[in-house]
Amino acid sequence: MKKRLLLAGFALALGAGYTLTALSQVKPEILVKQRQAAMTLQGKYYGPLAGMAQGKIPYNADVVARNAAYLDVLDKMPWDGFAESTKDVKDVKTAALPAIWNEPAKFKEAQEKFQSVVGALVAATKTGNEAGIKAAIAEVGKGGCGNCHQNFRQKD
Amino acid sequence: MKKRLLLAGFALALGAGYTLTALSQVKPEILVKQRQAAMTLQGKYYGPLAGMAQGKIPYNADVVARNAAYLDVLDKMPWDGFAESTKDVKDVKTAALPAIWNEPAKFKEAQEKFQSVVGALVAATKTGNEAGIKAAIAEVGKGGCGNCHQNFRQKD
Repeated sequence: MKKRLLLAGFALALGAGYTLTALSQVKPEILVKQRQAAMTLQGKYYGPLAGMAQGKIPYNADVVARNAAYLDVLDKMPWDGFAESTKDVKDVKTAALPAIWNEPAKFKEAQEKFQSVVGALVAATKTGNEAGIKAAIAEVGKGGCGNCHQNFRQKD
Repeated sequence: MKKRLLLAGFALALGAGYTLTALSQVKPEILVKQRQAAMTLQGKYYGPLAGMAQGKIPYNADVVARNAAYLDVLDKMPWDGFAESTKDVKDVKTAALPAIWNEPAKFKEAQEKFQSVVGALVAATKTGNEAGIKAAIAEVGKGGCGNCHQNFRQKD
């Protein structure tokens, strides 16, 4: 009973309620694994679009629309995995740079920029304008993935 | 030019076009990593719902609705990662059982069952009926995750 009250109080106090309560229970190694999983899937669904925009694989409007819609959901998934608790995580390889925690506003801005260019791609897929769609795909790579990796991810 | 024609012919011949063309270029190790990433994220977004349904963490209708919607997209992502090319994959740990390739119809049925119970959960979240939602959460675990893992995933 006391524990339940404490938990409820903790959740209320933090405002964000569930999310933070649950995050506080998730091990840093798991958070890293989950955020890397989101990045892996973003790569899975963006990679072929980049190939199409560059003319390396045949253009397929249905695949572009599907993958863009998937990316529009996946682009919300990595960020809570960059919790402070993961800053000095051991036993797991990560390319995350300290700037993520040192410049949180800039990191947040990069996330929003990524979500914004993905949103623009989704909108473009509804026009059927192949040139416009390819430009939007390129912008996701440059203004989305690249922009964030440039500042917040260790170079390979 | 010849290569491009060949690629185009290959894509047309396979009917499914892009998907299969691209899959044939993706290394088995990457396919395994991608399917495991989808499973990891399904766990990330299902786990807290299970905790809520069991009364272990505070119920939060907004989180349930959000996670259910995420699962409704994620439940489409793992399956093309179980390509034949991954059957005897080395250098990567996987719990996938041979039944996946020996009983493809049954595996497909399990995927569809999972997608169906997730769909039912999404529908339940729109009713606001907490008891019904919790029952739908439990069914995702049992009829979805559990049902498939029972037959197609090595026990821990």
